[in-house]
Order: sequence, then C-alpha cells, then structure tokens
Amino acid sequence: MNIKGFQFSAVEAAIKKPGRLDLALIVSETPAAVAGVYTTNAVKAAPVLIDQERTKSDTCRAIVVNSGNANACTGPGGMDDARETTRLVADGIGVAEDEVLVCSTGVIGVPLPMDRMRKGIPPLVQGLGKGTLDGVARAIMTTDTFQKLEVRTGMAGGREYTIAGIAKGAGMIMPNMATMLAFIVTDAAVDPAWLKTIFPAGVDRSFNAITVDGDTSTNDTALIMANGAAGNPVLSAGSDGAAEFVRLLDEVLLSLAKLIVKDGEGATKFVGITVKGARTDADAKRAAMSVANSCLVKTAFFGQDANWGRIFAAVGYSGAEVDPDRTELFFDDVKMVENGVFAGRDAEARGTEVLRKKEFSVTVDLHLAAGEATVYTSDLSYDYVKINADYRT
Amino acid sequence: MNIKGFQFSAVEAAIKKPGRLDLALIVSETPAAVAGVYTTNAVKAAPVLIDQERTKSDTCRAIVVNSGNANACTGPGGMDDARETTRLVADGIGVAEDEVLVCSTGVIGVPLPMDRMRKGIPPLVQGLGKGTLDGVARAIMTTDTFQKLEVRTGMAGGREYTIAGIAKGAGMIMPNMATMLAFIVTDAAVDPAWLKTIFPAGVDRSFNAITVDGDTSTNDTALIMANGAAGNPVLSAGSDGAAEFVRLLDEVLLSLAKLIVKDGEGATKFVGITVKGARTDADAKRAAMSVANSCLVKTAFFGQDANWGRIFAAVGYSGAEVDPDRTELFFDDVKMVENGVFAGRDAEARGTEVLRKKEFSVTVDLHLAAGEATVYTSDLSYDYVKINADYRT
Repeated sequence: MNIKGFQFSAVEAAIKKPGRLDLALIVSETPAAVAGVYTTNAVKAAPVLIDQERTKSDTCRAIVVNSGNANACTGPGGMDDARETTRLVADGIGVAEDEVLVCSTGVIGVPLPMDRMRKGIPPLVQGLGKGTLDGVARAIMTTDTFQKLEVRTGMAGGREYTIAGIAKGAGMIMPNMATMLAFIVTDAAVDPAWLKTIFPAGVDRSFNAITVDGDTSTNDTALIMANGAAGNPVLSAGSDGAAEFVRLLDEVLLSLAKLIVKDGEGATKFVGITVKGARTDADAKRAAMSVANSCLVKTAFFGQDANWGRIFAAVGYSGAEVDPDRTELFFDDVKMVENGVFAGRDAEARGTEVLRKKEFSVTVDLHLAAGEATVYTSDLSYDYVKINADYRT
Repeated sequence: MNIKGFQFSAVEAAIKKPGRLDLALIVSETPAAVAGVYTTNAVKAAPVLIDQERTKSDTCRAIVVNSGNANACTGPGGMDDARETTRLVADGIGVAEDEVLVCSTGVIGVPLPMDRMRKGIPPLVQGLGKGTLDGVARAIMTTDTFQKLEVRTGMAGGREYTIAGIAKGAGMIMPNMATMLAFIVTDAAVDPAWLKTIFPAGVDRSFNAITVDGDTSTNDTALIMANGAAGNPVLSAGSDGAAEFVRLLDEVLLSLAKLIVKDGEGATKFVGITVKGARTDADAKRAAMSVANSCLVKTAFFGQDANWGRIFAAVGYSGAEVDPDRTELFFDDVKMVENGVFAGRDAEARGTEVLRKKEFSVTVDLHLAAGEATVYTSDLSYDYVKINADYRT
C-alpha cells in the first residue's frame, strides 16, 4: 500500500526482546498538516509533553516511535532523552527538531535506553522508502496479538486520496500500563486549522468511546498527518468533499478503535453498549461508560450470564439522570426490562442466547430525552487477570 | 452478648437455599433514636425508598431484614411487598407500621416471595427474646464466607453502654449485585438529631472508604438504633462522653468495613491506600479511590507485582490535582518513587517483599497541601472472576 508523499521505516533496536521490530519512523516528504489528541492523565509521559507543544504548529514532518519503553515517570532526564531522539531524527532527515514528533510505549519508570536509540536511528533513517506502514504497525505492538491497520480511499476535486491508520492496543500494556497509540496518515490536502477541529471530534467518537479496563495511560496519543500529495483542493470546513473526508476519517478511527477492543487483554467478547433517551449526549456517554467499566457487568459477559440487574445498577450509579420506572434494557433485540421491571423468564432464556455470541449489543433506553451514545468494551476474563497479574512472576 | 432493651430473632423462611437463616428481626423494647445512610445509586430498591422516609423521624422500633431477594427493580409491586412486610411485623409486635424499617439483599428483579414472608413472620416474631445478634448476622449473609460482628463498650455518666454492629459483604452479591447492609444497635441514650449527624460522618470514614469492585448497589443501607436502656444521660453534641461515643462508634463501623473487604469476593490481599499531601481531603479520597478501583492495580496486587507505575497512573487520572515531579510512593515503608522518579532496583526488590504479605499499605504523598484520606480494598483474583462469571452456569 502506498500513501503518496510518505515514507516509512522500522528496525530492531533491541529495546524489546530480540527478533522484534521496536523503532519506527513515519516521514512526510513535505510539511504535513498535523493534529494530535493526548491522554487526559495528569501524569503524562515525556513524549506526550513534547508533542503537545509541537502539534500547536500547523505542520510537522515526522513521527519517531519506539515500543518496549514508555519514557514515562522518568523526570527531567526523560524529557532530555525524548528531545535528543527527535534531534537525531531531524538531523538524519534534514528538518528542524521541532518538526519531529516522538511517541513511546512500554515499560514505565525506566530510562529510555539512549545508547540503543542512538545506534538504532541511523539505520532507521537509511531504511526510509524501503519500509511500509505495516512494518510500523508491527513495530509499535506490545501485548497486541495482531497488527491493526485500516485504509480508506476517497475523492476530492477529482483527485483520489488515501487515509491510512495504524494503532496499538489498549488494555494496559505489560508490565506497567496501556499505551494507546494511533497514527493516521493521508495524502489529502487538508486545512491545518480544520484538521485540528475534526480530528479530536473523531477521536472522541472512536478511541474515547472504547474501554478495556477503564485505566487511562500516561502515554495515550493519536496523531494525524495530512501532506496534500494527492493534489486535491485543500479540504476545509464546508468545502467540497469535506463531509466525505470526515466520514472516511471517522471510519478509519472507529475501525481501529474496535480492533483495539477485540484485541483487549483476555477478551472473549466484543460488546457495544448504547444508551439512548438520556437527558443529554454527555449523560448517555457517562451511563454507557459506567456499564462498560463495571467489573461485575464484564464478568457476567465472560460468564454469558444475562445479568441485566448489574447493568441497571451501573447505569444507576453513573451520575446520569435516570428514572428507573421508565427504563428499558435490551440484549440485541431481546427486551429484558420494561418500565424498570424484569420482562420474565422467557426473556431471560432468549437473552442468555444473545450472550453466548462473540459479539452482541446492550441497549438501555432511559426514555427521558434524545441523548444517545455508544461505547465498545470487552469482557473481564481469567486471562485478563492472568496477563496483568503474572507478567513478572 | 446482651444489648439492653433489644431483642433479636432469625428464622428459615425458604427464601435462600434450605438450611440457611434468611429472615431476621431486631426490636427495641422502647422507641430508639434512629439514623440511616443509603446507597447513592439512582436505582434504589423498594426497602431503601421506604427506610429513607421513615428514618426522617426521631425514633423507630424495629428492623426486619431478609436475604435471598433484594426486592430491587420490582416496580410498584415491590413497594407494596415491602410495606406489607413491615405491616405484618408491626402488627406482630404491636407498634405502628412506620416504626418498622425493612431491608432486603439478594437476587434483583424477582418479586419478593410474599407467601414465604407471610409464613415466616409469625415464627420470627415468636422467636424474639430467644434469638441473638449473631443469629441476625448469619441470616443476612449471602456470598459472605463468615459473619461480621463487632462490639465495643463505653462509659457515659457512670453508666456502661454497649455498641454492637453487624454487617454483610460488599463485592456484589450473587447473582446480581452487592448489597452492603450494616445494623448498629446501642443501649446508649443518644440525642436523635446528633445521631443523624455523627452516623453519616462515621459511615463516610468506614463503609464509604472501602471498595471491592467499585460497583454501588441498589440496596446499600446502614442503620443505627440507640434505645437509651443503659440509663446514661443523653449523649449529644459536646456533652460528657460524646467524643468517646463517636470514637467507639467509628471503631465498630471501621472494623466492620474492614471485615467486608477481607471477605471480598475472591480476595487474597487486604490493602490500605493512603493519599496524603493532597490539595484537599476530597482530592485525597478521589485519588485513593481511583487507585483502589483500578483493575490493573488490583491484578498487580494479586500477582504480588510491585507495579508502582499503575498506581501512579491511577492517581494521575483520578481528577485530583497532581504534580508528578513532587510525588512520592511507598509500599509499607519502602519508598518506590521519589520526586516522580523510580527509586531503583533495590527498592523494587524490597517492595516486592511487601506485596507478598497478606496485608500491606500503599501511601502516595502528593506534597501539595495537607489533604489526606485512607481507603481499603482487596485484590482482583481469578476467584473474583469465577464467583461473578460462573454463578448461574
């Protein structure tokens, strides 16, 4: 797959175990419009702090990313290491240091092994043009069991463009914490200011609508680069093709987000939780996230137990406005609760059938107003506990 | 054990499996000052709604409680059933219906089996005077593996009084949800208005400072009755002996709360989480609860992994004010993090030793101001998943 005007590279720098790619580079041949969305955790890793500053500008040229070490909780030394990493890359490709973004994922609290970074960056730069986005997707994996890549093509002003995205998993990556990383590259020409509006909105509907265990990492980062190599008229708010671009970008983001949930640690189920009829969309999302993060709900999913009472309770303590006597609850299209009361044994039998499926939906209708939200989650299995309890023992 | 002026009874009413006490009664021979604290869940069980109204009065006479059925999500019929239960008890002991409180714990969404309640209440009333508080403690158990009873004695105005409390477990009781119930009885004479102040405060420092899985039930209820049979001068704000009464009450509440955590579903560890140096006490509690509810932190405790990074991240996303570069973190007295940076491999080895213990503490010092809070939690084990996933399969 080719995205015009971008070059990729991935190498083994011995930051992870031998035999695995762990250092990667994405370079745009020309300045690319850029936008970033970052973890809301008050404890932010060094690369997050640097990228937050640098993505305030309209454009950037490159993203360098390592797996195996998160460069988080590493103090001022961690900031120096992240800056040196970008400087080495900038010198190698001949751009300014602040045009290079940096991301890290892996162990927290351990200094980035700069000797290996310094040794790895020259071959990384030399590999540009020979590598692929797939290679970068592999290089950023940690506990992920498969690489995550989504591509869409669209038309604007008679020119075809491509939006390609890669991501690595949530579910709190061993041995310390999850780091959700996502990189989107497109050869479409996009107005930088508009990109900085639509990208956070798309992330909100996708990566911010999934949860594996409710823990928010220190390193979560989503970045997009749009370099205009497709030659289309610049897309901006209300321009021809703008709506289609947003729709395709949303598809890429949501597809990647769903892949992350499906690859959640120990996941055996993929569940969409929709809350509708809420007072506001925000209330709906609060209630849906409360259900999606409930350990009790998630163990019931794992146990294939049509345990609507736990879902009802999680909606109740979410903080969203609820009138229990009006609430309806469905597993797929099976109504389990009507006007706050159990629909009966027949519904239970049919609901249990739904929960035997690998993928199903839960819908809670609050019957208050028009607020609605959907989030995606996995179940809580023995393997989740095993993966997260046993890593270092 | 004897608490003057109180009578107890517990019977088998076939609401739970045969051979287990499931219906119990606490009666004060005279009107007892009363206070109650209830679940904050917007979905409240019928008995909670009734008791909330009835404990607005100064005094009550009795508490009737069943296990095996929560009478939650049962609609208007559930309210009728709860009221009829209190009416039958009131008629049996010769008091007004609204002097009787009612609690239920167990299955949600299934109507209370009123035929069994109606059959069980006459022998329940006849058993008064022959039963014990221990019997009531047994009758309210669901997935609890041991009964929870704490007693303290104090002196006020030359008279000895007793504070006795019982509780049943958190951890979301099978098959639908946890119901934390706690009943405190004391023969001390206590001003009702003052009791309504000190009891919620004590509950806040105890039952509201524990978490097993972060799920808040529809039925959580804590009640206290103080009947004055000890003959002491009435205790009230600032009176002689008031401070000691509060201290002893807090001891009973906190001891019961700790027993609930120790009996948490699948628990193998008992961990106190203290956050100090926070901007406010509320910030400290927010951060401590965030750590205590993190699935990643709790699986690390189960795995005996000195994984301070997960704790650090959970503090970071709690919403509490945090300056990562000032934060310290301890396992017992082993400093793992200083000024936001890992204390090194030696600390890791010693921290791992701490986590091998059955009970230990985690302390996070934010070094911002004087806010402080301690909460108690358990780990997240295979057995938690097993208990909550496999109950009905």
